[in-house]
Amino acid sequence: MNFREINPSPRMLMCPGPVEADPRVLRAMSAHILGQFDPEFTSLMEETQEMLRLVFQTKNTQTFVVDSTSRGGLETVLTGAICPGDKVLIPAFGRFGYLLAEILERCNADVTLIETEWGTVFAPEQIEEELKKKSYKAVACIHGETSTSMMQPLDEVGKICKRHGALLIVDTVATLGGAEVKVDEWNIDACIAGTQKCISAPSGSALISYNRAIEEIILSRKKVEKGIRTVEDIDGKLPQIPSNYLDLAQLQDYWSPRHLNHHTEATSMQYAIHEALRCVLMESLEERFLRHKLNDKALCAGLKAMGISIFGDLENKMPVVTAIEIPEGIDGKVLRYEMLNDFGIEVATSFGPLDGKVIRIGNMGYSSQKRNILFTLGALEAILLKNNVKISAGDGVAAALQVYCSANGN
Amino acid sequence: MNFREINPSPRMLMCPGPVEADPRVLRAMSAHILGQFDPEFTSLMEETQEMLRLVFQTKNTQTFVVDSTSRGGLETVLTGAICPGDKVLIPAFGRFGYLLAEILERCNADVTLIETEWGTVFAPEQIEEELKKKSYKAVACIHGETSTSMMQPLDEVGKICKRHGALLIVDTVATLGGAEVKVDEWNIDACIAGTQKCISAPSGSALISYNRAIEEIILSRKKVEKGIRTVEDIDGKLPQIPSNYLDLAQLQDYWSPRHLNHHTEATSMQYAIHEALRCVLMESLEERFLRHKLNDKALCAGLKAMGISIFGDLENKMPVVTAIEIPEGIDGKVLRYEMLNDFGIEVATSFGPLDGKVIRIGNMGYSSQKRNILFTLGALEAILLKNNVKISAGDGVAAALQVYCSANGN
Repeated sequence: MNFREINPSPRMLMCPGPVEADPRVLRAMSAHILGQFDPEFTSLMEETQEMLRLVFQTKNTQTFVVDSTSRGGLETVLTGAICPGDKVLIPAFGRFGYLLAEILERCNADVTLIETEWGTVFAPEQIEEELKKKSYKAVACIHGETSTSMMQPLDEVGKICKRHGALLIVDTVATLGGAEVKVDEWNIDACIAGTQKCISAPSGSALISYNRAIEEIILSRKKVEKGIRTVEDIDGKLPQIPSNYLDLAQLQDYWSPRHLNHHTEATSMQYAIHEALRCVLMESLEERFLRHKLNDKALCAGLKAMGISIFGDLENKMPVVTAIEIPEGIDGKVLRYEMLNDFGIEVATSFGPLDGKVIRIGNMGYSSQKRNILFTLGALEAILLKNNVKISAGDGVAAALQVYCSANGN
Repeated sequence: MNFREINPSPRMLMCPGPVEADPRVLRAMSAHILGQFDPEFTSLMEETQEMLRLVFQTKNTQTFVVDSTSRGGLETVLTGAICPGDKVLIPAFGRFGYLLAEILERCNADVTLIETEWGTVFAPEQIEEELKKKSYKAVACIHGETSTSMMQPLDEVGKICKRHGALLIVDTVATLGGAEVKVDEWNIDACIAGTQKCISAPSGSALISYNRAIEEIILSRKKVEKGIRTVEDIDGKLPQIPSNYLDLAQLQDYWSPRHLNHHTEATSMQYAIHEALRCVLMESLEERFLRHKLNDKALCAGLKAMGISIFGDLENKMPVVTAIEIPEGIDGKVLRYEMLNDFGIEVATSFGPLDGKVIRIGNMGYSSQKRNILFTLGALEAILLKNNVKISAGDGVAAALQVYCSANGN
């Protein structure tokens, strides 16, 4: 028996997820297990729902956690809200837009994908133009597209969808907890987020919220299992949801005060999420968004001072991810390897047309810290210099420090 | 901001799951996060696969973890191995047999359910008789049916399936790590287990293993996502797997040395599973099974001495769950409430025809301990006496202690 104990080397996770979990979250997970129908546990679940509503800025009753990673949360909401044959518009501006299409095609939705160049976002009119062409059941889109670092403004999109009677389903996996996400104000009908990015809990669960319009679709697709059905249970009229595990009809019953048996809730991840949301709210959303913005400003100032180009439309860059163009003279793989190996800092590559062209630097949740930004700039400078890339030595960290000094009024 | 920190009351989880996690497992989860493609993390994943093969007693390459609870693991394997229209036989002897049917019906399999009275198991001939009637693609069944406490012997079933050319897919969620499960020797083609029962990690992940026959089906159903596909990727010939998240074709690529991007692996749960499997192997399977058997023997001796009837066919009772008939004079809900409220001990009700008739006592993983058995018997006695149920006072704990003394040669 020579299997090792868990003892990871020190890491600074400056990638777009998973990022460092808040140490308070990690500690919360070491609490002992409660039974899933223990009143102490169900009351924790209810508190989590209450906190999650505050973080999603919504009054939606249906606001809860799915025991799957964010990808599973997306599938849960999409396969629940969208029936076979439903027309769905996907304005895609990066890899994760394709993922929405992929998931929807498997549930036999009638998908129309419109695309814009990677590194840009859609003007609201582009989406409206498409909605005028035919009657869509829904628009599904990404808020923060980590593959390109772009963030789609949603306020106008929500109004347009409402005007055209299309549901708006949004993936805020990369933004919730790090940038403004206003579910109710922006007219988002269903919203999905993750735990491993700006929420700073481990990966493994998805956070979702949806309104009455979506709930009514779900109820019309409900079928209660033979093993637990009672005479009160009536099956719905729309086609049943294809998955049993990711069945929103069952999940919303499980998360209702009735707590109808479905899966066995992931206890320790519930502890983690409860603590992570508590940390978010103790900091306050406002302070948290300011912190991410300031660290983003410092990071970008440092990169520019070093002479590194930032990829894409800077007006619509996410404050929590920055994609840099890989300077001539160094291979992206070498850069990432040396960052990890020499400095224990993880930065990320990208996908498709950007693979090998940009490196993505995250600035998310607990990882979004002044010292992390400064160390990352310093390490990047050292590696570029070591590889004989022409940059302006010493200027990166100095420029970032200057941003922090100015923010403090110095 | 008045949300509480995580601080659960002390609990002894003598239910059939989730049970107490090993404290070493809980501590492992508080280690900081590693990136999902960090070589340190992928090497942990590989170690987990190696340990999991030992625990499943298999040489199957395809042995890994799914980021969903056991229910999601069942769906992953069933929807991957079974195509629409495939004939599947389900010998059901409790609630979870129905669940297999439920999942398979949603993927449009042609399901034949045969049933036996709750509290019994199938004779191998009953299954063979059915296999003679028509050509089945697969037999799917439960190993340990926690709803009735019965355990289906599988050795003969495996031989029969092999003889008739039917795949054997088995749910060992409740037994793996607590009772013998021999995947290769028993000719099990695909096996699914959970983390929250005899493995003694938190709920949230599923453990799966399948052989080359199943792998070939999966490969024929493969389709690589647009966002990450390369020219090398060729789509398979059988119908695509309906789920993207629970797509075994993608999951086995993710768990292969290629580590092809799919979901973001649940880091802390991976730490937990790695440590839990290590604990299982450090104890050794043999010792672990003996421990569960001894504690089961002591529990049953105590119950009988108290005058309580044990439900079902005792020859085929799981060593890790005991269902007791609720004695006259007390309501099952009161019994469970007082066990939890006065003693912090959780025992469980059952489902369907057994709801309100039996109470299920678990004896799983870290919860399977001499002191837990003794305390549970003592608490049960006190509550029955308090409720004026006629039992033989003082005899339960004494009989259990006697079993432990005999086992020690005293």
